Amino acid sequence: MKFTLKNNSSKYSARTGVLETSHGSINTPVFMPVGTNGAVKTMDPNELKKIDFKIILGNTYHLYLRPGTDIINKAGGLHKFISWDRPILTDSGGFQVFSLSRLNKISNSGVEFQSHLDGSRHMFTPESSMEIQRKLGSDIIMAFDECTPYPCDYNYAKNSMHLTHRWLDRCLKHMDNTSPKYGHTQYLFPIVQGSTYTDLRKESAKYIADTHAVGNAIGGLSVGEPAPEMYEMVEAVCEELPKDKPRYLMGVGTPINLLENIALGIDMFDCVMPTRNARNGMLFTAHGTINIKNKKWADDYSPIDPEGTSHVDVFYSKAYLRHLFAANEFLGKQIATLHNLSFYLWLVREARKHILAGDFITWKNQMVMQMDKRL
Amino acid sequence: MKFTLKNNSSKYSARTGVLETSHGSINTPVFMPVGTNGAVKTMDPNELKKIDFKIILGNTYHLYLRPGTDIINKAGGLHKFISWDRPILTDSGGFQVFSLSRLNKISNSGVEFQSHLDGSRHMFTPESSMEIQRKLGSDIIMAFDECTPYPCDYNYAKNSMHLTHRWLDRCLKHMDNTSPKYGHTQYLFPIVQGSTYTDLRKESAKYIADTHAVGNAIGGLSVGEPAPEMYEMVEAVCEELPKDKPRYLMGVGTPINLLENIALGIDMFDCVMPTRNARNGMLFTAHGTINIKNKKWADDYSPIDPEGTSHVDVFYSKAYLRHLFAANEFLGKQIATLHNLSFYLWLVREARKHILAGDFITWKNQMVMQMDKRL
Repeated sequence: MKFTLKNNSSKYSARTGVLETSHGSINTPVFMPVGTNGAVKTMDPNELKKIDFKIILGNTYHLYLRPGTDIINKAGGLHKFISWDRPILTDSGGFQVFSLSRLNKISNSGVEFQSHLDGSRHMFTPESSMEIQRKLGSDIIMAFDECTPYPCDYNYAKNSMHLTHRWLDRCLKHMDNTSPKYGHTQYLFPIVQGSTYTDLRKESAKYIADTHAVGNAIGGLSVGEPAPEMYEMVEAVCEELPKDKPRYLMGVGTPINLLENIALGIDMFDCVMPTRNARNGMLFTAHGTINIKNKKWADDYSPIDPEGTSHVDVFYSKAYLRHLFAANEFLGKQIATLHNLSFYLWLVREARKHILAGDFITWKNQMVMQMDKRL
Repeated sequence: MKFTLKNNSSKYSARTGVLETSHGSINTPVFMPVGTNGAVKTMDPNELKKIDFKIILGNTYHLYLRPGTDIINKAGGLHKFISWDRPILTDSGGFQVFSLSRLNKISNSGVEFQSHLDGSRHMFTPESSMEIQRKLGSDIIMAFDECTPYPCDYNYAKNSMHLTHRWLDRCLKHMDNTSPKYGHTQYLFPIVQGSTYTDLRKESAKYIADTHAVGNAIGGLSVGEPAPEMYEMVEAVCEELPKDKPRYLMGVGTPINLLENIALGIDMFDCVMPTRNARNGMLFTAHGTINIKNKKWADDYSPIDPEGTSHVDVFYSKAYLRHLFAANEFLGKQIATLHNLSFYLWLVREARKHILAGDFITWKNQMVMQMDKRL
């Protein structure tokens, strides 16, 4: 995996670069939409490509349970199964095991759990998580880790971090001993843990840096902690992680979170927020958020977002979109999702431009102020 | 409204022609997708235009209750409100009043009912139905009628038919005394009623023919009666209706129903079936119907419909579509809807070709046999 930084300025931590994978190049900072079950909710993959998303996420936990790894393996991997020929990143399954399933037992060997769908019993280990992601054919495979909740007791966080490190060693070993299944390269990203404790975060980041992986991730944030604490942890970790490798902050976040973390040196993001909030009628814009269900939009015939970059933004009015939500029409969710995803794309594209232009901080501060409003 | 028949053969009753409206021409036979609340469920209007639908339906009852006629009037009519610049046909509101709302009273003056949304009290009269449809800006306005259920007592059907005729006279008068609101022409189609009684149907058809409307409709069918009874009524009515005016069979039907009724001389159809069944996982194809939820498709990696005309048909596999339904993903409903609507479009396009080529009956019989299967 080649990662080339385009700005060599030491002026600030924000970076822009290009990440190369077997399924194409990705300009960073990048936002990756979440395709939980092998589909970004309400989005035709052709539409995702048209608005120029370069990479999407799949959830190992969900895909393992349904349709099952074998169905996807027999299809020739996830890319073929879902008809998406650009890069795919998959998480390790760990996060959902801890948040969705009935958890039975965490041990050194792995995690026993029961499916949230039918109660069936399963076990994920570092090795099985790697094996499933191998079979999914992910371009970027995430290490199997324990994601601690917030708040988290110091000792629990410390022990859990060590467990995550031991699991990481097994993930690395399994990856070394196995080959990709579908002819394209698969890369493993280790994950920094350590809850909201700076010393643990630094220790974890150093451990992860020493593995010399092609890219590194930060997990266990955006799980309920106040944003300043998240930024503090990200800053501490970024100091330790190698500068020449991409840094992926998992599960983050709001448009403001994205910009603040880009400022700290993050290159990659994923989050269900733009898609999930869209389905609830919440639109992100450069001038703040809109709750389109609000009665005030009922006779507002102005475009959804006059400055928006998606074709829906000026094609439909707020009044119509509000009506679609009131009538519970699918099209409302589709329009809102396309708008939000296009907005996130625009935001990181602008960030890249301003980093190169050298005025990122000024622009970021202005945007953060602007976006922190309810319209 | 200009209606030009392209086949002058007396060989059979099936016809093909062109219907001209202020918002463009429509080749007949035509299928019109239903946009109940001002949206064809799951379909972006741009996609509808891309696959070349020429006309869609709106439901007066639904739009009157939500968002309300005023909201649409202030938007400049339904075309502008929903961003659709091709023809729109609206029903009169009658059908939903009888099937959805809590019906309070039918009298000579009109129908009192309570909204299925909030129980609020309303009254539709022939005049108010015309007025609402004027404000919606429909290209084709449907007369306000009573749609009798099946089965229906002879005397009830007879009295109801006479009521529908009296209401029709008032609709015609109101249309004569009022003007379109948005600068384009609006046409009224009267509706033949008479339940499943041939003598009533003929009497009603003659009454309707005598109004010399630009187009005529047949209502009160496809409400539960066996298909042969529907065809018998359509045949009897088509004998009475003028040959040089378009004939619209309301609320019909399956692909087989379409072909059989085209054979009897019907030019226009609408039905929720392709869209509603799609959302339940039922796909129509030239070789029969597919229940994509069926386990047998779980590892069938063949295209959804190798002969299909929509881009989704060969882009996605049956296994993937089955997975999307199993996981309750929106994209499944979107793909299935696009498939079914494209199939209906293809079917009437083929019908037009075969009518012109003079081999419609042979083709129709072959198709009916083929399509009457479960795959």
